Amino acid sequence: MLSKNQQKHIRQLSRKKYRQESGFFVAEGEKLVNELLDSGWKADQIYTTVPLQKTPHTIVDPSVIKKISHLASASPMLGVFQLPKYSNADTDLDKFSLVLDSVADPGNLGTIIRLCDWFGIKNLFCSPNTVDCFNPKVIQSTMGSIARVRCHYVDLLSLIENCNTKVYAATLDGNSHYQESFPSHGLLVMGGESNGIGHKLLKKIENRITIPSRIGDVGPESLNVATATAILLSEIFRP
Amino acid sequence: MLSKNQQKHIRQLSRKKYRQESGFFVAEGEKLVNELLDSGWKADQIYTTVPLQKTPHTIVDPSVIKKISHLASASPMLGVFQLPKYSNADTDLDKFSLVLDSVADPGNLGTIIRLCDWFGIKNLFCSPNTVDCFNPKVIQSTMGSIARVRCHYVDLLSLIENCNTKVYAATLDGNSHYQESFPSHGLLVMGGESNGIGHKLLKKIENRITIPSRIGDVGPESLNVATATAILLSEIFRP
Repeated sequence: MLSKNQQKHIRQLSRKKYRQESGFFVAEGEKLVNELLDSGWKADQIYTTVPLQKTPHTIVDPSVIKKISHLASASPMLGVFQLPKYSNADTDLDKFSLVLDSVADPGNLGTIIRLCDWFGIKNLFCSPNTVDCFNPKVIQSTMGSIARVRCHYVDLLSLIENCNTKVYAATLDGNSHYQESFPSHGLLVMGGESNGIGHKLLKKIENRITIPSRIGDVGPESLNVATATAILLSEIFRP
Repeated sequence: MLSKNQQKHIRQLSRKKYRQESGFFVAEGEKLVNELLDSGWKADQIYTTVPLQKTPHTIVDPSVIKKISHLASASPMLGVFQLPKYSNADTDLDKFSLVLDSVADPGNLGTIIRLCDWFGIKNLFCSPNTVDCFNPKVIQSTMGSIARVRCHYVDLLSLIENCNTKVYAATLDGNSHYQESFPSHGLLVMGGESNGIGHKLLKKIENRITIPSRIGDVGPESLNVATATAILLSEIFRP
């Protein structure tokens, strides 16, 4: 049985500030919990209604999971995991990396993490005001990819200024993505839902890239950030 | 002032069954309401807290909009519109059309409608169990594109059997989308979040197409349906 205090602790992990103070986050669902464990993430405790071969775990009643779940419909398994600590060396691994400026929607970030995983990007760089990747809604929408993609919240201006690689900004006034020959090393910067890439940051980026609309000005103003990222990554990693 | 009955009528339009019985749907936000009006959609009434040059409209207090809004945070403008009636002739206009089987998530459908608009697809064919395009969450996430993309809920088996065009199914075991030469006319079928394309339907489709994962089996099982659609449409409409 979980004490009231333990239940409260787990429920409070839905808040970013509490996650950062306590050093833990919650992941729900058999598949996700198992993927994190298999990828070497450290669990503080797994609460499960179904048998599990891994430790540490506690078998609980479905009603208990319901009380501590962050989801509208609770899964049979909920894990409390330690927030990871990445070293700087971890960030040097990708040939082409993705950078997000001010992405606010948890579903968009989760979907983009899943895209990074699909295309083999291991490091994702986010502006500090991008939604936290350990937000329960982000974790769920990564569909397990959070286990393999590291999100770094960093100052993007200094990241761009100090990188020795070609940098692309996705904008509405750049070269067509169909015509660009992307190099094997580089950075792609995507802007958030409300205002795109910040003005100061954009000024530092030489190359602008656009997905041309086939109906022009009479159509939508822009694409959703996750779908635009999908299209550009598919093009960047064209074999 | 709106009567209690009028308020109830508008709130009930969040339900598909009530929309179909009454013949109306709700669209919220200045941009969306104006796009629908500009595209010739028939408004029953526009409730607005800000001046509007178009009719019919009623100026109301923000507290009234709050009572009838279907959104978590209400916009200054809410329109009640007539559900459109499309004739069969409307469906013949596209060279390449998109088909959705069992897409359940409103955000995914809205994002896909926005993609269709971007790539000039005017008709979207959906299985009857795909989420209703006049669901308030779908409408919002189309960002206005619902004004220009017609969604047809039809029997997909007979659609596929009777079309005289090349049909592609997006699956996990097809040819790489990088290597396919897409024709100028055709249909692309995307499957829903839970089970992909239905077995019976898939058997009728000759051509299977896949977005190859760069990390293979150790990575995610699949891509989100909206991001996969984005990648394939960008490839299909490559100039």
